[in-house]
Amino acid sequence: MTSLSDLPIRDDLRGLEPYGAPHLHLPVELNVNENTHPIPEDVARDIIESVARELLTVNRYPDREFTALRESLAGYLVSTEPGLELGPEGIWAANGSNEILQQILMAFGGPGRSVLGFPPTYSMHSIIAHATGTRWIAGERDADYLISPETAVDWVRRSEPDIVFLCSPNNPTGTALGLDTINAVYDAFDGVVVVDEAYAEFTAEGEPTALSLLEGRPRLIVSRTMSKAFAFAGARLGYLAADPAVTDALRLVRLPYHLSALTQAAAVAALAHAPEMLAMVDDIKFQRDRIERGLAELGYYPWPSAANFVLFGGVSDPEGLWQQLLERGIIIRNLSIPGHLRVSAGTAAETTAFLDAMRELTPR
Amino acid sequence: MTSLSDLPIRDDLRGLEPYGAPHLHLPVELNVNENTHPIPEDVARDIIESVARELLTVNRYPDREFTALRESLAGYLVSTEPGLELGPEGIWAANGSNEILQQILMAFGGPGRSVLGFPPTYSMHSIIAHATGTRWIAGERDADYLISPETAVDWVRRSEPDIVFLCSPNNPTGTALGLDTINAVYDAFDGVVVVDEAYAEFTAEGEPTALSLLEGRPRLIVSRTMSKAFAFAGARLGYLAADPAVTDALRLVRLPYHLSALTQAAAVAALAHAPEMLAMVDDIKFQRDRIERGLAELGYYPWPSAANFVLFGGVSDPEGLWQQLLERGIIIRNLSIPGHLRVSAGTAAETTAFLDAMRELTPR
Repeated sequence: MTSLSDLPIRDDLRGLEPYGAPHLHLPVELNVNENTHPIPEDVARDIIESVARELLTVNRYPDREFTALRESLAGYLVSTEPGLELGPEGIWAANGSNEILQQILMAFGGPGRSVLGFPPTYSMHSIIAHATGTRWIAGERDADYLISPETAVDWVRRSEPDIVFLCSPNNPTGTALGLDTINAVYDAFDGVVVVDEAYAEFTAEGEPTALSLLEGRPRLIVSRTMSKAFAFAGARLGYLAADPAVTDALRLVRLPYHLSALTQAAAVAALAHAPEMLAMVDDIKFQRDRIERGLAELGYYPWPSAANFVLFGGVSDPEGLWQQLLERGIIIRNLSIPGHLRVSAGTAAETTAFLDAMRELTPR
Repeated sequence: MTSLSDLPIRDDLRGLEPYGAPHLHLPVELNVNENTHPIPEDVARDIIESVARELLTVNRYPDREFTALRESLAGYLVSTEPGLELGPEGIWAANGSNEILQQILMAFGGPGRSVLGFPPTYSMHSIIAHATGTRWIAGERDADYLISPETAVDWVRRSEPDIVFLCSPNNPTGTALGLDTINAVYDAFDGVVVVDEAYAEFTAEGEPTALSLLEGRPRLIVSRTMSKAFAFAGARLGYLAADPAVTDALRLVRLPYHLSALTQAAAVAALAHAPEMLAMVDDIKFQRDRIERGLAELGYYPWPSAANFVLFGGVSDPEGLWQQLLERGIIIRNLSIPGHLRVSAGTAAETTAFLDAMRELTPR
């Protein structure tokens, strides 16, 4: 039998393991920061109608410019950020924000170029850097997983990257990043600044996001996803907002027709229900706050989260606790941060199940 | 206003234009080798039911290993190729065969590596090579767009590529490639041989395809698509058959969850109707043969096609003729091959409209 090592794969891939959060099916799945609320029935009905309409012409290639989807996404973002001026020409979309990040690295990174990130952060940032031949520079955070403008600028000056990846709220820590840090990074070099805001909708109401910085900053890219707030992880729809020149750059590396007609139709239909989808977000934030309080009461150290998950320290045996939860039908995430585990905020019932299990499993 | 040239894009992208077949909507569209037959109503109904079921859990990430889809694709291929032994572990899929080819180049190509192809061929081959930093080597064909084993082996020996892209039937010429050439290329070096068989279903009945060569050839990859025979261009489903070790290699570079749950569900439902979908293929082959005969009668030189399109020479002014057809509501493709145009085989009515227009536009 042929094995991977018998094949002429790229030398820098030899010995690597593929990305893989464990794919287990359990009664309570709080491990990959999904929105555990199914989409409401009336929204599902509209999506099905849209998809059905699209099937009539599915023999044809889809709209390569996904114009209707870009209009819907621009409209949605404008509705969430007071004063934002953004049209469809400043929007780009792909099959999940992973593909958005890949396209950004293909256009602005690649061999001979580098990207600076600040671990612990979304694990795909360094994986995609590697896969696109972009050198990954691991910066260091301040205490409490924060990044001050001074720290960030110092790293930019010392490492001279072509691209900086920021993540706010940051996965897996949940910490939000000050706009002053984003600003300072932007001004500190001539490269591209990417702010991964996959969890933006879970930040405190009225808090401005990196979208508010777009005006006058053509090298700033804000990446978003419908996976979390829109409960759309299965439909794979990531997007970005940026200067229209950025979308021109991405057209040079995107695969033509990369977004299927069904994906486009489903996303447009879901976006038409934004207020209803965002109502679920409020409930998730409520459950997240319950988790923070509940874990603190049990003596753990939850990090203040602006996202739909909580990273908590004070775990003497993370792998052991992870395993004991698993035996109770609950899966959370062990990211190999010493003394820490991460849990996604679920529905009220899932959150209760998790907190009850933690109460049982925590020695007094 | 910021323009693309103001942004710090990769130096080798500067001055490039994005891929772009003209995106015009006309009564008769025979320009991008689509299957112009809409999918049958009962198939559409099954797809909608599948997608509707999938929407119940669309808040969750999709099956990263798309197991059901791989089983369906393996079953379909086995049903088309007598004697083929192929299980789901030898199947991989992505958002269109463009993404399949991109993943292959990311795993086996990239900076410092090269891929040999034989233009004129599918234009995305060299574009994806470029985007992944893989050096593109343009081999030359024999007369009549054929590639003999000797010619192919000579190019492999002289250019020492890491990968060879073959395309059969070849787009845009329609010519099929002998299995002897594929075999000879495979034996001539230690690299990866990719046979792009996007149009395989349109070859003559009973003709073996490159699938029949897979056994014992772990460096051979056969790429396919549902865009053409399955009238599924809008749904974006490309796939490949190869040794299971190849799929292990692709897991190292694929973006996790690259295939949406809706895409997986739609494709599985369509594959369950393979016999019905393939009935359309017979009609398309009939129309293709009509086009070949009709154009020959008008004094053009159609190349014998094993695909769903016809490349024809003997056109004194390709751009002028293309424009005149456009004015009659018919769009075909000008690929800048001197004296040539390419037309896709449509429905009976579309084919008649094209041939009637050609009769009018051809000087006696």
